[in-house]
Amino acid sequence: MKVGFIGLGRMGSGMAANLLKAGHTVTVHNRTRERAEALVQAGARLATDVAHACRDADAVFSMLANDEAVREVVFGEGGVLAALPEGAVHVSSSTISVALAGELQAAHGEAGQGYVSAPVFGRPDAAAAGKLFVVAAGADDAVAKVAPLLEAIGQKTFGVSATPQAANLVKLSGNFLIASVIESLGEAMALAEKGGIDRHQYLDILTSTLFGAPIYKTYGALIAERKFQPAGFAAPLGQKDIRLVLAAAEALQVPLPLASLLRDRFLSLLAHGGEELDWSAIGDLPGRDAGLDTVTSAVSPGFLSTTRENAG
Amino acid sequence: MKVGFIGLGRMGSGMAANLLKAGHTVTVHNRTRERAEALVQAGARLATDVAHACRDADAVFSMLANDEAVREVVFGEGGVLAALPEGAVHVSSSTISVALAGELQAAHGEAGQGYVSAPVFGRPDAAAAGKLFVVAAGADDAVAKVAPLLEAIGQKTFGVSATPQAANLVKLSGNFLIASVIESLGEAMALAEKGGIDRHQYLDILTSTLFGAPIYKTYGALIAERKFQPAGFAAPLGQKDIRLVLAAAEALQVPLPLASLLRDRFLSLLAHGGEELDWSAIGDLPGRDAGLDTVTSAVSPGFLSTTRENAG
Amino acid sequence: MKVGFIGLGRMGSGMAANLLKAGHTVTVHNRTRERAEALVQAGARLATDVAHACRDADAVFSMLANDEAVREVVFGEGGVLAALPEGAVHVSSSTISVALAGELQAAHGEAGQGYVSAPVFGRPDAAAAGKLFVVAAGADDAVAKVAPLLEAIGQKTFGVSATPQAANLVKLSGNFLIASVIESLGEAMALAEKGGIDRHQYLDILTSTLFGAPIYKTYGALIAERKFQPAGFAAPLGQKDIRLVLAAAEALQVPLPLASLLRDRFLSLLAHGGEELDWSAIGDLPGRDAGLDTVTSAVSPGFLSTTRENAG
Amino acid sequence: MKVGFIGLGRMGSGMAANLLKAGHTVTVHNRTRERAEALVQAGARLATDVAHACRDADAVFSMLANDEAVREVVFGEGGVLAALPEGAVHVSSSTISVALAGELQAAHGEAGQGYVSAPVFGRPDAAAAGKLFVVAAGADDAVAKVAPLLEAIGQKTFGVSATPQAANLVKLSGNFLIASVIESLGEAMALAEKGGIDRHQYLDILTSTLFGAPIYKTYGALIAERKFQPAGFAAPLGQKDIRLVLAAAEALQVPLPLASLLRDRFLSLLAHGGEELDWSAIGDLPGRDAGLDTVTSAVSPGFLSTTRENAG
Repeated sequence: MKVGFIGLGRMGSGMAANLLKAGHTVTVHNRTRERAEALVQAGARLATDVAHACRDADAVFSMLANDEAVREVVFGEGGVLAALPEGAVHVSSSTISVALAGELQAAHGEAGQGYVSAPVFGRPDAAAAGKLFVVAAGADDAVAKVAPLLEAIGQKTFGVSATPQAANLVKLSGNFLIASVIESLGEAMALAEKGGIDRHQYLDILTSTLFGAPIYKTYGALIAERKFQPAGFAAPLGQKDIRLVLAAAEALQVPLPLASLLRDRFLSLLAHGGEELDWSAIGDLPGRDAGLDTVTSAVSPGFLSTTRENAG
Repeated sequence: MKVGFIGLGRMGSGMAANLLKAGHTVTVHNRTRERAEALVQAGARLATDVAHACRDADAVFSMLANDEAVREVVFGEGGVLAALPEGAVHVSSSTISVALAGELQAAHGEAGQGYVSAPVFGRPDAAAAGKLFVVAAGADDAVAKVAPLLEAIGQKTFGVSATPQAANLVKLSGNFLIASVIESLGEAMALAEKGGIDRHQYLDILTSTLFGAPIYKTYGALIAERKFQPAGFAAPLGQKDIRLVLAAAEALQVPLPLASLLRDRFLSLLAHGGEELDWSAIGDLPGRDAGLDTVTSAVSPGFLSTTRENAG
Repeated sequence: MKVGFIGLGRMGSGMAANLLKAGHTVTVHNRTRERAEALVQAGARLATDVAHACRDADAVFSMLANDEAVREVVFGEGGVLAALPEGAVHVSSSTISVALAGELQAAHGEAGQGYVSAPVFGRPDAAAAGKLFVVAAGADDAVAKVAPLLEAIGQKTFGVSATPQAANLVKLSGNFLIASVIESLGEAMALAEKGGIDRHQYLDILTSTLFGAPIYKTYGALIAERKFQPAGFAAPLGQKDIRLVLAAAEALQVPLPLASLLRDRFLSLLAHGGEELDWSAIGDLPGRDAGLDTVTSAVSPGFLSTTRENAG
Repeated sequence: MKVGFIGLGRMGSGMAANLLKAGHTVTVHNRTRERAEALVQAGARLATDVAHACRDADAVFSMLANDEAVREVVFGEGGVLAALPEGAVHVSSSTISVALAGELQAAHGEAGQGYVSAPVFGRPDAAAAGKLFVVAAGADDAVAKVAPLLEAIGQKTFGVSATPQAANLVKLSGNFLIASVIESLGEAMALAEKGGIDRHQYLDILTSTLFGAPIYKTYGALIAERKFQPAGFAAPLGQKDIRLVLAAAEALQVPLPLASLLRDRFLSLLAHGGEELDWSAIGDLPGRDAGLDTVTSAVSPGFLSTTRENAG
């Protein structure tokens, strides 16, 4: 198939590479051209602009940072909406709001184009290995048409609904669940530490017994070591996703007290200068609130000038 | 070794059986005698009372329902404190408060007896199979003395501290973490369901991807099916454990907002007549609050008398 | 002065009447014309459209329901922005978002017009009596120019800042404080009632002692009587204001856990069909969660079909 | 009447003085004798011990710090229970737990004595002026018997129930309501301050408009000035009262999310070394969480040793 691919960040470049490997004709576009080079050497065509990536395509993927970027790429002048051929499908893999997914479906529908929400679970290494989990939703024919493409980028595709927004809701709620694990571990470790238990030993007990899942090991280690840099997934992205979860929940009239707690954690983290930290740094805040001498205690702007210098 | 064992519930009877299998001389006691019969047939001696189970013992285990039961068995007339020989060790495996563990250590210390807190992770089937995880804390010599006994009942022993309370804190915080999983799944499923996604399919996606741990599968299935009876671990026990977590956190001055949320969930569940439900029924409350027609919507005593009649 | 007035709801009509009484030349506009009649009889001119109300005006007030209405009236074709003379001032008294206030200031500034945020505290009767409290913010010269107008509508004007958004933040946070009173009273009354204390007697003690302020009497009585209809200020408006508070807090990176709790209360109320109830009905939810047989227990859509019929 | 009075703190001494003024024969007792001197000069008799204060009395008041102190004075050797004549009434004005009030009623009932819970609202100056509000509950005859005494200490007596615990619940819930005001003001002020509004001006607007009650003025000023010393009502006492509210709510199965939030605030305050601050210092924590440079940011023990030195 002829496929356009817009957005070559750490996730998108891996996904595009796997589309190439599966034998598709892939035309890539990225705001900064350098990120496209490796793909071009692997056989991708380089689009001069968004419209070029859509021209003659059977489908075009977008994998971008947030609602604003997707809006611009789709609705902007020379955007996907204007350039994609009738009958072709826009596959949106970005983590965007449920509301925007609804707008995209409506707009593409009016334009005679197909629309599939296909967000993914997995980190950049899974994207590179074609081992993502893909959650796909959209009209049956549109999903069927892009199924071979989704197979190329992931180890499994979950079709959830004929309504595209459902896939976005699954993705967002998944990130909510991960953030919930971070919060719960942060509280438990603050309690254990103040109770005189070594954080690492505590984590070892948890992950050797009931909580052996990788997610507990990965995030538990970051919290136990208070090592929040470099950021695998930066705090502002976590904050954005929780905001989108709460926005979806508001539209559906679903109270989510735990999500509200996470919201406040992220705001406090960012208010203390934590925007470059990994999102797991919210797991440091329960310790701060308990009076422990934590990393996040030290990132307060009020203390930055003194403690940071002296830390060296 | 000569071992007394007090409390032959579903957990205790399995533990005592494994002590027997390991070749120890075990004298058992239970408030109701019937529960001891299988063990007696397997070679255990039947104690006439608590004191009898302690007499001449190298160690005595207690595995009881709550603080009150432990207090009575230990501090009551003819209790463990009075009957246990000097130098022998009381191994407390019950899920009790951190404060009571501290009292027990002090009292046994004054009496020249040893004290080890050794709560366990695992369900009755793991207890029967000798596959529990044991978290042990206490003075080094006391822990060393009972190490062969702990090995007999579990697949692994984690020694966490010379302070017995540390083991109880680990156990309680572990239950807090499980309840946190229940709450987060409950909120996510309420959101997904109101968003038009099938609960079972949603859970399948979660557990096939990021949340493959048994704990998500087990509790996720109960919440998705709204099947909270029969109770594997009853709501009042869950409420008790969260209360003990909060009590420990108060003593250590650790704010735990997520634990407070869980507390309110359990109180609401019990206020609506949920005391016979499994503790995972708190995962039904986010749906109730979102206006879904849930099991817990229907257990309100206020409704039972009126709407139920009228519903027919 | 020549003044336009757009939005003649229960608040706006009282405000416009007082501008007339103070001797100003007032041209009024409302989407539905009937609401303008009494004012016209009192001497107001009737505008044919928004632009007409702005023509030749020294200042134009807008008093509308929400951001969407204000956006349409200001930015729409023939809107305030296009029609207001250079140098004239737009006085926005609607309860709108902090973000929109910022947009309005920027847009009017570019158009050479003045902009003042002047939200008010007080109910329709205070508006009719010219007894509102006005919170005004904007450039000094703009505020000074409209000061006589603000004096005409209120008993006192508080000038808070040269930045218009500050006034909106004060207004929104004031509504947050009122909702907090409702929540706290709701929790306290649920506790008292389950403790066997008569709700009315309980409220009487509170308001006779520490909580004599009218706000406690007014809302306390509604909660004690569970009388949430007719709505003085409807639940969806309360939900909107808390949403705007949280949005402002997010932009300023301020965690507000109590506001988050209120958000969840409003969502639960609306999810149970409470959109026609007064916003004080969130004060009924603590009782519902405690298993009391409350009004909000009965508005669940799942039960509407049965309980409502049988209630008669 | 012959009245004993136990506990001559700032509240108790004022209350005892007013009993004297009303013409009653008052025998006073305090753990430290100095506090009794002024009363003795005013005509009170000095008891040698608790029993002495009860001997021949028609009624004995206790006004003590907490449950522990009341337990010792009542149930200890030579305590009120043992020494009070049959038919005489114990009036407990201390802010104690609902559970203890229940125990006291039962114990005095068995001993043929009367028991009335009569906690008060008001500060030391109101106690000195006989202007307290008294909330009284107990058997009708017991309440009737001590009515003249309650009139002597307060400006009004509210009889709430034949069950003494009801009065304690009213008192505790009143303190919960005050703490709720503090939290809401703290959140609102953090938002206003980060929004560029002067805290004092903000408070002035609030208290000039909707929130004119003394409680908003008093606590608002403390929060706006961040002046939490000297403590009028110390943080540990506030924490204790919220604990007692939550304990009562747990027994009655009433979820109180706002009370849980307050609990966490107090724990965080105490964890940062705030035990000598006024309880209104919890109103400083929302600002701390928002990254403002607050008093409570600076009281962290972890910072005291390092940053303070380095700040110079």
